[in-house]
Amino acid sequence: MFKSIALPVALLGVFAAAHADEGQWQPHQLPQLKSELKRIGITIPAEKLTDLTKHPMSAIVSLGGCSASFVSPDGLVVTNHHCAYGAIQRNATPEKNYIVNGFLAKTRAEELPGGPNTLVYVTEKVENVTDRVLKDLAPTLSGRERNELVDSRVKALIAECETDKAYRCSVPSFHRGLEYYRIRQLMIRDVRLVYAPSDMVGNFGGDVDNFEWPRQTGDFSFLRAYVGKDGRPADPSPDNVPYKSKDFLVVSAEGLKNGDPILLAGYPGRTSRYKLPAEIRFARDANFPLRVADMQADLAVIAAATKGNAQYDVRYASVVKSINNVLKKTQGLLDGFARKDIAAIKDVQDAEFRAWFNQPANQKGASKTLLADLDAVIAADMALSEEEFAYSVAANSDLLKSARTLYRLALEQQKPNAQRESGYQERDLSFIKARLTRLEQSFVPSVDEARFAASLQRYAKLAAKTHPQGLDALLPAPDAVGALYKQTKLGDTAQRLAWMSKDPAAFKASDDAFIQLAVKMHDVAMSIENRRKEIDGNLERVIPQYMSAVIAWKKSQGKPVYPDANSTLRVTYGTVSPYMPRDGLVKGPFTTVQGIVEKHTGADPFIAPKNLLAAVKEQRFGVFKDPVLGTVPVNFLSSADTTGGNSGSAVMNKRGELVGLNFDSTYESITKDWYFDSAITRAIHVDIRYMLWVMKEVDHADNLLKEMKIKYPAK
Amino acid sequence: MFKSIALPVALLGVFAAAHADEGQWQPHQLPQLKSELKRIGITIPAEKLTDLTKHPMSAIVSLGGCSASFVSPDGLVVTNHHCAYGAIQRNATPEKNYIVNGFLAKTRAEELPGGPNTLVYVTEKVENVTDRVLKDLAPTLSGRERNELVDSRVKALIAECETDKAYRCSVPSFHRGLEYYRIRQLMIRDVRLVYAPSDMVGNFGGDVDNFEWPRQTGDFSFLRAYVGKDGRPADPSPDNVPYKSKDFLVVSAEGLKNGDPILLAGYPGRTSRYKLPAEIRFARDANFPLRVADMQADLAVIAAATKGNAQYDVRYASVVKSINNVLKKTQGLLDGFARKDIAAIKDVQDAEFRAWFNQPANQKGASKTLLADLDAVIAADMALSEEEFAYSVAANSDLLKSARTLYRLALEQQKPNAQRESGYQERDLSFIKARLTRLEQSFVPSVDEARFAASLQRYAKLAAKTHPQGLDALLPAPDAVGALYKQTKLGDTAQRLAWMSKDPAAFKASDDAFIQLAVKMHDVAMSIENRRKEIDGNLERVIPQYMSAVIAWKKSQGKPVYPDANSTLRVTYGTVSPYMPRDGLVKGPFTTVQGIVEKHTGADPFIAPKNLLAAVKEQRFGVFKDPVLGTVPVNFLSSADTTGGNSGSAVMNKRGELVGLNFDSTYESITKDWYFDSAITRAIHVDIRYMLWVMKEVDHADNLLKEMKIKYPAK
Repeated sequence: MFKSIALPVALLGVFAAAHADEGQWQPHQLPQLKSELKRIGITIPAEKLTDLTKHPMSAIVSLGGCSASFVSPDGLVVTNHHCAYGAIQRNATPEKNYIVNGFLAKTRAEELPGGPNTLVYVTEKVENVTDRVLKDLAPTLSGRERNELVDSRVKALIAECETDKAYRCSVPSFHRGLEYYRIRQLMIRDVRLVYAPSDMVGNFGGDVDNFEWPRQTGDFSFLRAYVGKDGRPADPSPDNVPYKSKDFLVVSAEGLKNGDPILLAGYPGRTSRYKLPAEIRFARDANFPLRVADMQADLAVIAAATKGNAQYDVRYASVVKSINNVLKKTQGLLDGFARKDIAAIKDVQDAEFRAWFNQPANQKGASKTLLADLDAVIAADMALSEEEFAYSVAANSDLLKSARTLYRLALEQQKPNAQRESGYQERDLSFIKARLTRLEQSFVPSVDEARFAASLQRYAKLAAKTHPQGLDALLPAPDAVGALYKQTKLGDTAQRLAWMSKDPAAFKASDDAFIQLAVKMHDVAMSIENRRKEIDGNLERVIPQYMSAVIAWKKSQGKPVYPDANSTLRVTYGTVSPYMPRDGLVKGPFTTVQGIVEKHTGADPFIAPKNLLAAVKEQRFGVFKDPVLGTVPVNFLSSADTTGGNSGSAVMNKRGELVGLNFDSTYESITKDWYFDSAITRAIHVDIRYMLWVMKEVDHADNLLKEMKIKYPAK
Repeated sequence: MFKSIALPVALLGVFAAAHADEGQWQPHQLPQLKSELKRIGITIPAEKLTDLTKHPMSAIVSLGGCSASFVSPDGLVVTNHHCAYGAIQRNATPEKNYIVNGFLAKTRAEELPGGPNTLVYVTEKVENVTDRVLKDLAPTLSGRERNELVDSRVKALIAECETDKAYRCSVPSFHRGLEYYRIRQLMIRDVRLVYAPSDMVGNFGGDVDNFEWPRQTGDFSFLRAYVGKDGRPADPSPDNVPYKSKDFLVVSAEGLKNGDPILLAGYPGRTSRYKLPAEIRFARDANFPLRVADMQADLAVIAAATKGNAQYDVRYASVVKSINNVLKKTQGLLDGFARKDIAAIKDVQDAEFRAWFNQPANQKGASKTLLADLDAVIAADMALSEEEFAYSVAANSDLLKSARTLYRLALEQQKPNAQRESGYQERDLSFIKARLTRLEQSFVPSVDEARFAASLQRYAKLAAKTHPQGLDALLPAPDAVGALYKQTKLGDTAQRLAWMSKDPAAFKASDDAFIQLAVKMHDVAMSIENRRKEIDGNLERVIPQYMSAVIAWKKSQGKPVYPDANSTLRVTYGTVSPYMPRDGLVKGPFTTVQGIVEKHTGADPFIAPKNLLAAVKEQRFGVFKDPVLGTVPVNFLSSADTTGGNSGSAVMNKRGELVGLNFDSTYESITKDWYFDSAITRAIHVDIRYMLWVMKEVDHADNLLKEMKIKYPAK
């Protein structure tokens, strides 16, 4: 191992320019941050970042849950390995094990179908539709009435936008209902797998290293968007042609060094930065500990039920991975809350805000009872969420969930499309079908039975006041669960899908045990849902007033305010920088291929490909060698503000050139979803030089290296 | 916590000047390293460091097992808290709990007696006596004969030197018998406790943090050497006066920054840097794993036998601490061997050396069979050490060990003093008595019984070939051990000491079970000892030839060679520097008082004193605030080459001013005793600024701050 010789110099100047940068900004907000962007060294004008039709923003796309970007004029898309995993898995067979061996299409003809869940969304238009959503809402409306009215307006705005089937539209709310934007995205539905390295590269370190640093994960893959010959989205077909994106990112093989500025653009999912102290205490002291215990118990049940059966193991691998991910994230939040008294920090901020707001001059237009209303509706929200959690524990069976979806669909389909509940409209059918179909990959009746029985036992132990009224009487006894699985055909995909077209009467008449149970539970579920709408309606009435006041307060301090993440396109910026998790200890900012050699034990998840190890040993680093590190960088940390959904986000240098992909955060950063602590919050990125080096030295993806526009460092 | 604001800048320039510096040099060797010392920035001339009677070396002293230095003209000595622990413990009572509360003598009259184990040794003279030890040794001597002849010459050299009772002399061998130096030390036997901070400072982090970084331990205390009015060592007496040392160290409150050079002087105990690959493999694959398992088992027995009894717990606390320390060190060596194949590295070095040596021109004067002889005697040494280990397992009872010492003493006392075995001469009696007395503080019959019985069971499971011949038949059955404890009075200190003056016949006639057992086991023990002498004699014959050749080989490469540590005065140098234990992770070089606040949980060993926490909170840092860190540094890392025995060693800046005390090494450094890996080897020091800050802001030791000569940084 040569780390001792090569690496020390790497830390030269560590922290020179370190400052973490809070804010997931809507592109149109960036001109407000002009001087800040300039200060850290970004040279692209802030105005240029507001225009979604221009470089570089026009190259930033969503995969639905993940972020990505175009890197060639021919629809080549780069994202994380874990974001393309479904497409890789779908094409893998025991003979052609693309997961283990990786996959490279040397020609376009060899590119493989990504399947119905692999979609590329290109954001083309973002309109502020707040007025149309909120106009003339009578103050006398109940919460539920208000919620349903807003919902119907949102659905109308979507329907009007989706008249062209090439588009998928959405009207997310910002600041919990203060603003609504209609977002129109081109939905490209023929997306193919172009190149994925082995998961020994793409998932090196696996779950063990998830949320951890030091990290050496090559979490990248390439897809390609295809459209019909007319240039418009089309169903998958051999006749389709590569999509000509408006723009694409130029790649800089020069990479970055410590202290360099970065821009990061993508689709962060959800944050809770504006929670009240009471909400933090509720999460910290009650809700999250319960959730952690429940996930741990569920994982133990799955482990026991799949034990010794390799096929069952495989079926539940992604379920387990996903629960583990949420578990680690939830535990990380609890650890963060324990490390730093965030509730106390928020107490101070909240008190400062309330003191400001209590000055009559600052209350213009706001209800006099705003703060009291806010506290009341938040309290109601927390109480209901305890019931919702209890319900989710009781209903922890994939068959029950499928039956519930199907029965609800049947009921909704009785209504005209526009009046149906969101998620059950015509536009949603293909997604429901895909989800119901995909279940077959991650379902085993005996495992589902074990989970359901155990969950019912856990449900019984939850505080009685959190049990939704009427539910207990409907639930089977844990030891009676076995009988249900003997009396159902929902485990069969064809049978399951067949229910999509049946009417409510058919459900009521069915002797399928899970269909019966879903029908029986419907009223309780609807009661929860309706109370949720009532509370959400009230939240949507109160919170925007509160956020308006907060924004005014911040404005009085000269600070712009960004909305919580809501899966819409955001831009964040920061610098390459290490952090001190503890006194006397520094993490990052870079790891290198030497770290792969160090960690390689030959046992999963620390197995590096032989040819990669050989390339390191032979020091075949070429132009990808960092002059300071003396070797190839693998991952790096930046102070940018990211969250789930930012996976695959383009990390760009000051000129907007691609220098890496976002894929994770450090464990200490997990609390950032609730509180951004600039000292310890760091996002983890794959270094473009590692990606290019793997493509060149390990996988010989010369065709792609040629297709991309790569700026190599001057010799 | 303000670490996030204050610390990042601290890492500026991290690694700029990092290079760890192997070598525990005899002071007279330093002129050979002149240019190296100059290169790293040491301004004291190397020649000045060779003179033990001049500054700064004349200020460096030994406490016997620990190192220390004079810091005032009136015999004030600074060392580690853990080195002064015996003196603190001895004076502590439930009412005056100096361990928890610390102790400060505000006047000389308040200084407390350190007790018979607290001694200060001032090295005054070092003479090369190799010729006198080795002259005319007939090559026909057996190993044992040679060993005994050398030993008798050494004893004569010591006796000749100790005619003046003020001195303690020793004739240690260097390079395993290549050279012998006679060292004359003034032995000051009235040493008093002057100041010790609370163990919440001095032992912050306790065993949990032992060998770990990040570290925030204030491991320092002050003693004072007293002598008779004539200026010569005297028995403790109120009439004694402070010793006027030839010189003392000036203290620099300016401290150091990353990359600064340091000098470190002290008495390192034992290293094994010149071991052969076969010896490393023996330790790694056989001996150390056995030792680790045995220590773990012994600790478990002690834990079970003391459980629930607070008094027993206290009695065995230091025993447990000491076993834990050796265990962690041994495990650390095994971990280091696992991390890096040191045997393979040594294979390469060994092969290079053998290739060089096999050229006839390089063999001048050496035996033709040297390498074969070397391998043979090393093999014999390893085989015997297995028996020695087995014997030590079988004899794991404090009463048995006391009985063995006493019987041996009786036998030795039959001989004229000069012919007695080293360790049993007149000069050793006071040490034997102190040891036998001290046992009462760390002994409980039922615990000793449990340890002995369990050890006998473990002994029975050791490979039969390692059982010393004849031993098995003499040992009690494990279940018969209880009877021995009913038939002994050795547990009583007065009775134990009374045996010091009895003759062998009295032992043979005794019905004390442990005395009987010691008498019975004597022949087996002597057989092992005599075979040890035979092998040691052979080692002393062969190794010096081998080391001569190694030194010639190194000299041919322009490299000086330092001897393994042997508890004699050595100088090492290095720079303040962090290290990378793994890719992407940097440790050090500084910790700060903010780290104490971070680690403080209120539960042992992470309890910081309230007034210390208050001083940090109020930012009362004064001149001790580091301009880069923005707060008070606590511990720092340097690349100097240290080992056990270096505890308390003065860490000096380029001008020879005191800037810290050595007290530990990082876990990754433990392998340095066998192989110095410059990339990861770091010693841990207390920063002088923390010491002075604690003295000023926490303990108000103004009298000492006034007594020392402190150079404060310019404002």
